[in-house]
Amino acid sequence: MVFSTLVLNDETPIYEQIEQHLEKAIKVGALIKDSKLPSTREVSTVLGVSRNTVLTAYENLESRGIIYSIKGKGSFVKLEAKNKDEVVLLNWKERMSDYGKTCETMDIIKTEYRYEKGMISFKSIAPEGSLFDVEEFKRAFLEIMALEGEKLLNYGYAKGYRSLIDYLMQYMAGKGVDIKGKDILITNGFTEGLDILLSTYTRPGDVILCEEPTHHTTIKMMRAYGIKIVGIPIDKQGVKLKELEAAIKTYAPKWVYLTPSYQNPTGIVMSGERRRAVYNLLCQYEVPCMEDGFNEELLYSGSHVMPLIALEGSSNHIIYLGSLSKILFPGLRLGWIMADKACIDTLESVKRAKNIHTSFLDQAVFMQYMKSGAFERYVKKVKKYYRDKYLFVKAHIKKYIPYQKLWGEGGLHIYIDLAEEIDTRELLRRCYARGVLFMPGDIFRTDGQRTSGLRLGFARLQDEEIIKGLKILGEEIQTLLKQTNHCK
Amino acid sequence: MVFSTLVLNDETPIYEQIEQHLEKAIKVGALIKDSKLPSTREVSTVLGVSRNTVLTAYENLESRGIIYSIKGKGSFVKLEAKNKDEVVLLNWKERMSDYGKTCETMDIIKTEYRYEKGMISFKSIAPEGSLFDVEEFKRAFLEIMALEGEKLLNYGYAKGYRSLIDYLMQYMAGKGVDIKGKDILITNGFTEGLDILLSTYTRPGDVILCEEPTHHTTIKMMRAYGIKIVGIPIDKQGVKLKELEAAIKTYAPKWVYLTPSYQNPTGIVMSGERRRAVYNLLCQYEVPCMEDGFNEELLYSGSHVMPLIALEGSSNHIIYLGSLSKILFPGLRLGWIMADKACIDTLESVKRAKNIHTSFLDQAVFMQYMKSGAFERYVKKVKKYYRDKYLFVKAHIKKYIPYQKLWGEGGLHIYIDLAEEIDTRELLRRCYARGVLFMPGDIFRTDGQRTSGLRLGFARLQDEEIIKGLKILGEEIQTLLKQTNHCK
Repeated sequence: MVFSTLVLNDETPIYEQIEQHLEKAIKVGALIKDSKLPSTREVSTVLGVSRNTVLTAYENLESRGIIYSIKGKGSFVKLEAKNKDEVVLLNWKERMSDYGKTCETMDIIKTEYRYEKGMISFKSIAPEGSLFDVEEFKRAFLEIMALEGEKLLNYGYAKGYRSLIDYLMQYMAGKGVDIKGKDILITNGFTEGLDILLSTYTRPGDVILCEEPTHHTTIKMMRAYGIKIVGIPIDKQGVKLKELEAAIKTYAPKWVYLTPSYQNPTGIVMSGERRRAVYNLLCQYEVPCMEDGFNEELLYSGSHVMPLIALEGSSNHIIYLGSLSKILFPGLRLGWIMADKACIDTLESVKRAKNIHTSFLDQAVFMQYMKSGAFERYVKKVKKYYRDKYLFVKAHIKKYIPYQKLWGEGGLHIYIDLAEEIDTRELLRRCYARGVLFMPGDIFRTDGQRTSGLRLGFARLQDEEIIKGLKILGEEIQTLLKQTNHCK
Repeated sequence: MVFSTLVLNDETPIYEQIEQHLEKAIKVGALIKDSKLPSTREVSTVLGVSRNTVLTAYENLESRGIIYSIKGKGSFVKLEAKNKDEVVLLNWKERMSDYGKTCETMDIIKTEYRYEKGMISFKSIAPEGSLFDVEEFKRAFLEIMALEGEKLLNYGYAKGYRSLIDYLMQYMAGKGVDIKGKDILITNGFTEGLDILLSTYTRPGDVILCEEPTHHTTIKMMRAYGIKIVGIPIDKQGVKLKELEAAIKTYAPKWVYLTPSYQNPTGIVMSGERRRAVYNLLCQYEVPCMEDGFNEELLYSGSHVMPLIALEGSSNHIIYLGSLSKILFPGLRLGWIMADKACIDTLESVKRAKNIHTSFLDQAVFMQYMKSGAFERYVKKVKKYYRDKYLFVKAHIKKYIPYQKLWGEGGLHIYIDLAEEIDTRELLRRCYARGVLFMPGDIFRTDGQRTSGLRLGFARLQDEEIIKGLKILGEEIQTLLKQTNHCK
């Protein structure tokens, strides 16, 4: 009998296994066209499963056109066995896991408007490449190759290039971190750091609390891992305390994810007092926190604020995700995770299982570059450059854009709220037609809801482009405002 | 009441949620020491769950020393609320996901004997770095930096560096692949390629068939993803056909994973006829295959054999994982996936969600290096070098080692079976004490069972080290053989 070769497993629904088994038997010609299938009763006995389960399988096969049934007579094979030489193409889109599906459907590069040459794009928050010290970088390459050439091109270590780790430990100590119980893992940028953390310390269904709105890549990645994301409202000081505490009590979250500096997308810098209060809450409820160090190097606000991980002293609640990609060499994909030693020890094994290690050449050249003092000079230079640019954009937003609220204090982007009646998706459609692109606020919402907010990234735009783009944006907002007023 | 703030979720067992909720309430001082807890009956009514569930939670809390009960009176808080200023350290090892746990427990770098200076290690199959054309590589760097400097250091594209993709498409066409419906994604080495595939196209409980024995990193990664691995026996031609077909029928596997060239660990090259027969089977049953291109560039066997992906013509069952890391610049972590266009389209989104893209600098320099013709010259040189080394090792194994069977035809490693009564773990312990390391066969078994096999990697050893190491290995085998004969 056709079912004698079927061994049932525990993971796939039984009816699905029966369905697949029969489909295969038919396709390879083990069951030929118009031959009678065993009755559902027989199958249920042979496999020791309920008759309803078998019925479901048969019904599915019938609705898919693989078998047919004649009342009172039973079920029969409808499909011809395929010709032996026939090439059957696999449908790859049907074979995706939920993880793969989410990565694809939430991939904004594929789903949002694409930049085309000549357009003015406020979408990106990538840094301006002409600021990079390319000559300094070349020098660093030649120096380190002369010293360690073939060693750098052979296998390295999962945790990272030793002297880069040491450098970053001191770098973090300089931010006020008590580095005694801490260690560092080098990653392929912030994104891989978050990927490693999510796969190591979460399981589907876990709750993570985030600022609302927050970084869209984070939202996508968490959703792909089956995480329930709960957004916590923010004010000018950062995430709201009462709401954060209430959510901790309600959801018993596995993690809190925060971006304290020039938050993405709002540009808010969490104040020193708020950081302390948030840290105390995390400790009180023993909730660990992923601190996204995004844009921290750019901070040009008046008072010096410390990262959360610097507040915890010898405790171990905060895992810090560092990256310089927002200002320096994002093409290299270099980032780091700083955390408790026991934590990094586990993450090292996970890194090894994911891709063995980050390019040793890149780590070594980067380290050589940092050591030369070029980094400090560079940061000083770009801080001024981007601050001037920020002020320029802000001034022109005030001039051209009828906004309701302008969030944040700096960074490579500005977030504004428009009048509530403006649909930023409709606005984007109109602006795109005139060659102007921006990020509509719904992209950053944990619930994906439409908002009247939008993010304007400006690092790579020329002053004239900024003026021209903001004028167009302002005109289209005016048009929409008139239309909605007209409709009232 | 303490339970009024608890909102139950569907993912975690209810008793666990009750347990966690109470523990937290006690720790933060919402319930103080010696206060009475609500009765299990009350809790069951308030939450609408069975009384047994609540009882389980209370019992667990009692056995963990958090509450105590007095017969006839009820349950009471035992633990003091923690002092507000007390630093409570999180236990990170307890917070790992199953994925993280598996990556850590199967991390052979952590669990196996470590190399120490002065030892002779047959463990590694990393290439010999002194063969790398470091000067040629430097030249390639300076050339491409002069052309594209700052562009390479800024963000690139998830799929990869365009001209490297084009180069690899032609490279694969040169292996006989019909590239019309195919595309390529650049990855951080083979390991990331496999990681991307597993997360995109499998779910826990899926069955994957592999050669038995097979690559230990593959076993680890599949286990971490919750895959059931079924090993298929091999002979001198490669994976056995009847056993493969029987397993396909029995397990309805999601994938077959194969390493046709200088297989790891056996060094077997799957014959041309076997490749064709395996491919036909895969098609017949519509099972897709991950083809690990491991060591393919090293092939110095007489007859030219084509990769499986070259056999499929315009079909799309094979996903090819390419990497040059076994011969060239493994420190850069460069690899690629070649597959059906629809498949690469999805994988591109997954790559973006995992780490945005592979270092553009590395891709561009590597490409420049390849273009210069240096690669062809290099491959020619190392083929000869490693073949000579292989023959040298083989000759000395024959001289010093009382083996039962010597597998394979080449590569950077040799696999041998010893007399069945030899426990290679005991052998390794003894050899390690004398400064010699190798890979015991159980590491490559899908079931982890002890075997009398072992893998000897030799690429980075000097001739004298090889002779010295094999002598020691041979002596220790002789000693063990005498012992077991003595016991008989």
